[in-house]
Amino acid sequence: MNHSDRYPSRINENPSTLKRVDRVVYWSDKTKEGPLTKDTLLSYEKKGYLSLRGFFSPDEVQELRDELTKLWQENRGSTRKEVISEPQSREVRSIFAVHRDNTVFQNLSRHPRLVSVAEQILGSDVYVHQSRINYKHGFTGKEFYWHSDFETWHVEDGMPGMRALSCSISLEENYHYNGPLLLLPGSHQTFISCVGQTPESHYEQSLRKQEYGVPDQENLKRMVEQHGIDTMIGPAGTVVFFDCNTMHGSNGNITPVPRSNVFMVYNSVENRLVAPFSGQEPRPDYIATRD
Amino acid sequence: MNHSDRYPSRINENPSTLKRVDRVVYWSDKTKEGPLTKDTLLSYEKKGYLSLRGFFSPDEVQELRDELTKLWQENRGSTRKEVISEPQSREVRSIFAVHRDNTVFQNLSRHPRLVSVAEQILGSDVYVHQSRINYKHGFTGKEFYWHSDFETWHVEDGMPGMRALSCSISLEENYHYNGPLLLLPGSHQTFISCVGQTPESHYEQSLRKQEYGVPDQENLKRMVEQHGIDTMIGPAGTVVFFDCNTMHGSNGNITPVPRSNVFMVYNSVENRLVAPFSGQEPRPDYIATRD
Repeated sequence: MNHSDRYPSRINENPSTLKRVDRVVYWSDKTKEGPLTKDTLLSYEKKGYLSLRGFFSPDEVQELRDELTKLWQENRGSTRKEVISEPQSREVRSIFAVHRDNTVFQNLSRHPRLVSVAEQILGSDVYVHQSRINYKHGFTGKEFYWHSDFETWHVEDGMPGMRALSCSISLEENYHYNGPLLLLPGSHQTFISCVGQTPESHYEQSLRKQEYGVPDQENLKRMVEQHGIDTMIGPAGTVVFFDCNTMHGSNGNITPVPRSNVFMVYNSVENRLVAPFSGQEPRPDYIATRD
Repeated sequence: MNHSDRYPSRINENPSTLKRVDRVVYWSDKTKEGPLTKDTLLSYEKKGYLSLRGFFSPDEVQELRDELTKLWQENRGSTRKEVISEPQSREVRSIFAVHRDNTVFQNLSRHPRLVSVAEQILGSDVYVHQSRINYKHGFTGKEFYWHSDFETWHVEDGMPGMRALSCSISLEENYHYNGPLLLLPGSHQTFISCVGQTPESHYEQSLRKQEYGVPDQENLKRMVEQHGIDTMIGPAGTVVFFDCNTMHGSNGNITPVPRSNVFMVYNSVENRLVAPFSGQEPRPDYIATRD
């Protein structure tokens, strides 16, 4: 066990909870410069997320969607490690490291409007910890079970503290019925320490279907009873920013209406990865940037 | 092939559509007597369903829910044929023939308010073709893929025409996020003839996970483009009446919030079952009442 581990997980036989010891918004003189207002930041601090409609214009969305379709066609049946298929089919479910491998998404990852929000919340310079496209196809898109990203990034990648956030960029309209992102408001203030040990090279399976680092039902139930469930619906071009420890998931999608989006994860340069807290080999660079 | 088969399905290699030849509301002098108004009936005729909030009082709901919980406890791990488990676990997913085997649900099936609506729409006396409890548990409840009940009842049970309806009685609040019933308005006017042959004793699997009688993606897409998707949210005690050919399904439920309901299917006495149109043995009585 790592002695500086503020958020131990997958160590004990029973789940437990820890109070978050890190800040959510890293307030500083720079915070005042925008682009978000103080009220918006206070709301983010309380709920653990914010949703901004019209963040990208229809033209910007169209360009990203064209690239997404191109990448999907290019990667069908691909055996590249960056390409993850659905648990029960060969359909492409996700493509990782698009900020590294694709010019359009590299530009997106450096987009000043995205980066300035991330920097304002995290109170420092930031870098891309992870990027991916999630294709949630019509008819067959499966659920993503509840998880805190931070739990995995901490245990498997060695992210020391909670000073990172995700942006989910909608490239299609999110309705209630096509498997939108579900968030548990306020859940970012509690770290659920999960049970079970992580097997070696676990990530090759977990990207298709999570089996370790899964929060227990009792704590999830309590979180929902306390704070409810918030559903991120909205038109294409909406961006949801959410804290690395905000509990989230999504139901499957039997409707014909696809729901694809791009994830960009920004980590503070003050929070660079160390050795994984599992004591195991770090996951590869396409999942967790280390340099 | 049965020569009086007005809705052939699972015969051809490609899907096709047929226009409905049966009425939706069986108008007669008796129709005027209520309990539904003419406007409500016209809306049902057009959309293929109607949702009535507060159909059952909180006390009535509580009695049904208590019985549902009792049956769930009694039937965990049961090997009775009437008890269907989830595809990937041993959790009880459905219990069939509760109108036959349980006094509380027998009384429910004869409830004058339910029966009078069914009789008004179907324009004749009715009987219970099928009943079941569907437990959609929190966390693990899986999706029900799109289907027309009539397609199965016709092919596998020998229901000659479209003169039956289902009532879905909510015993818990239906939210957008806990896998509510999704309906395609107007879909009841079109019969989708499905591909593939039905294997013998297929029902033992299909009650857990449907693999035959599955409508094709192109036709589903077209139906959604034309008419959209309607989500049946509402408090416990709501009853949704829907035509036997209305296309419906539901997404899974990763939330802790359960979504259990009771299904009662009423068939017109003028539409009693004949030999299955598949030419195979009829399914057993607990799935399709034959006497």
